[in-house]
Amino acid sequence: MDYTQTLNEFCDYLKKIEAYSKVNSLLFWDSMQKIPKAGSPYRANTRGVMAAELFQLQTSGQMRRYLDQLTPVQDKLSDFHKALLRVSRLTYEQNAGIPKELFQEFEGLKAEAMDAWDTAYKNNDYDYFEPYLKKLITLSREITKHLPFNHEPYNALLNLYEEDISTEALDKMFGEIKAAIIPLIKQISDKQTSNPANRLAHRPEFLSRYVPKAAQEKLCLRLCKILALDESKAMLYETTHPFSFTINTNDVRFSTRYDEHDFASAIFSTLHEAGHSIYSLNIPEELNETILGGGASAGFHESQSRFYENVIGRGYEFVSLIYNDIMECLGEYIGPVSLQEMYEGFNYVTPSLIRVEADELTYTLHIIMRYEMEREFINNGVDTARLPIIWNEKIRDYFGLEVPNNKLGILQDIQWSAGRFGGFVSYALGNVYNAQLLNNIKKEIDFNGLVSRGEFHKINEYLKERVHKYSQLYTAAQQIKMITGEEPTPKYFIDYLTEKFSKLYLN
Amino acid sequence: MDYTQTLNEFCDYLKKIEAYSKVNSLLFWDSMQKIPKAGSPYRANTRGVMAAELFQLQTSGQMRRYLDQLTPVQDKLSDFHKALLRVSRLTYEQNAGIPKELFQEFEGLKAEAMDAWDTAYKNNDYDYFEPYLKKLITLSREITKHLPFNHEPYNALLNLYEEDISTEALDKMFGEIKAAIIPLIKQISDKQTSNPANRLAHRPEFLSRYVPKAAQEKLCLRLCKILALDESKAMLYETTHPFSFTINTNDVRFSTRYDEHDFASAIFSTLHEAGHSIYSLNIPEELNETILGGGASAGFHESQSRFYENVIGRGYEFVSLIYNDIMECLGEYIGPVSLQEMYEGFNYVTPSLIRVEADELTYTLHIIMRYEMEREFINNGVDTARLPIIWNEKIRDYFGLEVPNNKLGILQDIQWSAGRFGGFVSYALGNVYNAQLLNNIKKEIDFNGLVSRGEFHKINEYLKERVHKYSQLYTAAQQIKMITGEEPTPKYFIDYLTEKFSKLYLN
Repeated sequence: MDYTQTLNEFCDYLKKIEAYSKVNSLLFWDSMQKIPKAGSPYRANTRGVMAAELFQLQTSGQMRRYLDQLTPVQDKLSDFHKALLRVSRLTYEQNAGIPKELFQEFEGLKAEAMDAWDTAYKNNDYDYFEPYLKKLITLSREITKHLPFNHEPYNALLNLYEEDISTEALDKMFGEIKAAIIPLIKQISDKQTSNPANRLAHRPEFLSRYVPKAAQEKLCLRLCKILALDESKAMLYETTHPFSFTINTNDVRFSTRYDEHDFASAIFSTLHEAGHSIYSLNIPEELNETILGGGASAGFHESQSRFYENVIGRGYEFVSLIYNDIMECLGEYIGPVSLQEMYEGFNYVTPSLIRVEADELTYTLHIIMRYEMEREFINNGVDTARLPIIWNEKIRDYFGLEVPNNKLGILQDIQWSAGRFGGFVSYALGNVYNAQLLNNIKKEIDFNGLVSRGEFHKINEYLKERVHKYSQLYTAAQQIKMITGEEPTPKYFIDYLTEKFSKLYLN
Repeated sequence: MDYTQTLNEFCDYLKKIEAYSKVNSLLFWDSMQKIPKAGSPYRANTRGVMAAELFQLQTSGQMRRYLDQLTPVQDKLSDFHKALLRVSRLTYEQNAGIPKELFQEFEGLKAEAMDAWDTAYKNNDYDYFEPYLKKLITLSREITKHLPFNHEPYNALLNLYEEDISTEALDKMFGEIKAAIIPLIKQISDKQTSNPANRLAHRPEFLSRYVPKAAQEKLCLRLCKILALDESKAMLYETTHPFSFTINTNDVRFSTRYDEHDFASAIFSTLHEAGHSIYSLNIPEELNETILGGGASAGFHESQSRFYENVIGRGYEFVSLIYNDIMECLGEYIGPVSLQEMYEGFNYVTPSLIRVEADELTYTLHIIMRYEMEREFINNGVDTARLPIIWNEKIRDYFGLEVPNNKLGILQDIQWSAGRFGGFVSYALGNVYNAQLLNNIKKEIDFNGLVSRGEFHKINEYLKERVHKYSQLYTAAQQIKMITGEEPTPKYFIDYLTEKFSKLYLN
C-alpha cells in the first residue's frame, strides 16, 4: 500500500496541532504579563476553548486512523517521521483513554486543591489540606488505570514528563546518588558546625545586602549578552515566577525576578532560564516548528537550564568572567567583595529544609525523597495523615535536620496540590544528564577555556551540533547514549559534586 | 417546527467563533508588544492558521444550515437572537462568496502593496506605487461582484465597516458638511493670514517644547484615573501606534505614544483610546462575550473615542479640570502657560495637508475627499496616473492649499495600500454621531457640570445605560434613531463646530 498520501496528510494535521500548541503557549505567556486582573476568568474561558480544541485534535478518530495506518509501515519511515508517529502515539495514549468524567473531576479537584493548599500553607495547617491530597492521590491512581505503563502504575505518571523512564532506572540512579551524597553532606555539615568561625560556616552577609532592582536588571541584561543571546530572538522579561516560553523558532521569551535583598537569585534565575532558551533557540527550525520542537523531555530541558545555571554559572571560570560586570553594576551596593568570596558565596552549601532554596549539592536529595514518597502512595495508596511523619523522617535521615512545622515540611511545595505527581524527578534527571554531557564536552572542546574567555557563541554552537539539534527526535535516554556512548548514569554527577564541594569545603 | 434545539446549537457554535476572535485579537495585540523581532514571520504563520480557522467557522456549510433553518423563524426570536442571526448572516455573505483564488490573490497583493507603498512614500515616488494601486482597485472591484450591495459596488465595501450605510446617505451628509465647513475654514484662514500678529494665527510654541516621556506618562496615567478607568479592567500601555484592544469583558488594553516634542499628542491619543476602551468596558457581559460585543460599527466606535478625545478632551470644562495636573506634571518643561492659552493651544486650527495631523475642524474634509475619490474609482474605475491630480484639486478646493509633492498628498496614508477602501468614512461618521448624541446628552444630564467637577463615573454610567449597552444589538443608524429620536444627521456636528470655532476664532 502506498502510504505517502496518508503521511502527508498526517504531517499537515500535525502542523495544525502545533499551531494550537503555540497559541496555547502564547495565551499562557500573556496571562503572566502585567495585564488587567479582572479579565482572568474570561481569559481562562478562552484558554479552555483552545486547550479543548488541541485535545480534540490530539485524540480524535482521525488521529487514531493515522496511527493505525502508519504504525504498520513505521520501519520504512525516516527518523523524523518515526518520531512524529512515536510522539503522536504517546500523546494519544496518554489522553484518549481517560474517561471524560474522571478527567473533569480531576481538573475541578486540582483547582480546589490549589486554593486549599494556599490556605493550609499560610496557616501551617496540614489537616486542612489532607482530604484534598487524599482525593488527589485516589484520582491519580484511578487515572493511571487508563494510561499505558510497564510494571507499576507510578511509571505511567513518570512517563507524562519523561518518556520511557522507569522506577527501575530511577531506583538505581537515586540509590547511587544517596549513597555518595548523604555522607558528603554530613561531612561538610559537621565541618561547618565544628568550626563556626570559618567563613564557609555561614552564608556570606554580602549576598543579602540591598541591591535595587534597576542595578540587578542592568547586570542581568549584560549576562544575556555575555551568553551570546540575540535580542532579536530571545528577550528577558520580569515576572513573579521565572520561566522560559518558546513562542516559535525565533521568538523565545524568558524571565527572572528581582529580590532586592538577594541579588544572586536574579542572576541564577536569569542563567537558568537562559539555558532553557538557548536550548529552544538551538533546535533547528524543521523540528522547532513541529510537535517535536519542545526538547527531548522535561528532564532534558532541565539539564540544559541547570547546565547554564550551575555547571557554567556557579563555576569558577564564569564567576571570574563576570566578576567585573557584577562589581560595576552592583559594587556600590554590595561593597568590596573579592572574586574568591564571590565564588564561595555563590557556592555556599548547607543542609536545609526548603527545596527551592536548596544549593547545588543538597538539591537532588529533596527530589529523591519526593520521588520515594510519590512512588509509594501512587502504587500502594497511603494513610495521608501519616505523610508528614514520613516526610520528617526522610529529612532527618538525609540532612540530619528536624522539621519544626509542616509549612517548612510537607506543605512547602505547590506541585502536589496541582496533581503533578511524577514531575519532580525532571529536576534530578536534569542534574544527572548535564554532568554526563559535561564529561563528554570536556573531552571534545576546551570547555573551561571557552568559558573563561566568554566565547559563548562557540559553546552554544557546539551544544547545538552535538546535543540540541535532536530535540524530541529521540528520547532523552537515547540521546544521552548517542552523545556520550553510555546509558544515563549518575556517576559523573556524583564525581562532579564530590570534586567541586570537597575542594571548597573539605580541604 | 421546534427551532429551540437549532438555536441552542447555533449559540454554542457562535461561542466557539467568539473564542477564536478573541484569540486572534490577542495574537494581534501580542505582535504589537516589545517582543523578539525575528519571530515575526512565524507568528504570522500562527495567526494565519487561527484566522483561517475563524474564517472556516464563519463560512462553513454548518453556518449556512443554521442561517437557512433560523431565518424563516427570525420574527419569533428575541432581539438578542435576531442580532446574532443578522450579524452572522452579514459576515457569511461578506466572506463565503469570494472565490478562494481571488481572496488569496488580494491578500498576497496587499502584502506586496504595503511594502511598495513604504518605498514609494519614503522616495516620494507615486509612479512606483501606481501599478499596485491600480491592481488593488481592479481586484477590489472584482471582489465587490461577490459581495451583497444595493445600487452601486462601493456600497459593498462601505458595508464592511458600517452596516447598512449607503452613498445616498453619505452624499447628503457630506454635502451638508462641506457646504457649512469649507466657508468656515476659509473665514478662519483669512483671519489668520490677515493678522499674523494675533496669537491664534500660529500654533503656540509651548506645544512643541521638550517634555520627557516619563513626565508625559505620569500625566496620562492621571488622566486614566480622572476618566474613572479601573486599572483592574483597563490598562494603558505604550506602543508605536496607539490603539485599544478588547481582550474580554474585563480586559481592555489601550495605548498611547510619547513624542517628546509634542506632549499634546500623548494626551489626546490617551483620551481617544480611553474612549474606545470605555465603550468596550460598558458593553454588558451578555453581549461582550458574544459576536455582538464589538460595538455597533467602526463609525460608532469612533464616535465614542472622538467623544472623549474632542468633545470632552478639547472642551473648556475638561481642560480646566486637568489644567493643574498638566502643570504639575509638565510645568517645569513647558513653562508658564495660562489656562486660556492651554485651551486655545489644544484647539488651534488651520487648513493643512496631512490628515492625521489635522485639527477637529478640518479633519472631516480630509475624509470626505477620500470618500469621493474611492467612490468614483471603485464604481467606475480610473486611470490611476490621474489620481494625484484629482487629489491635489480637492485640496485646493477644500483648503485653498497647494500640494507640493505626493508624499504630502496622495501617498500620505497607508490605508489604500492595505486595500482598505471604504474604511475612512468611519472617522467622519464618528464625528457626526457623537455630535448628535451630545445634543441629546445635554438635554438629559448636566453634562458640562459633570465634566467640570470630574464626575466621570456618572458620565460613563450614563453612556452605558443610554448608549453603550446596545453594542451591536442594532445597527449604528438604528441606535442613533432610538437614542436621539432622529435619523443620523450632520446638523449637530455642523452646529457644534460652527459655535465652537466661531467663538474661538471669529469673535
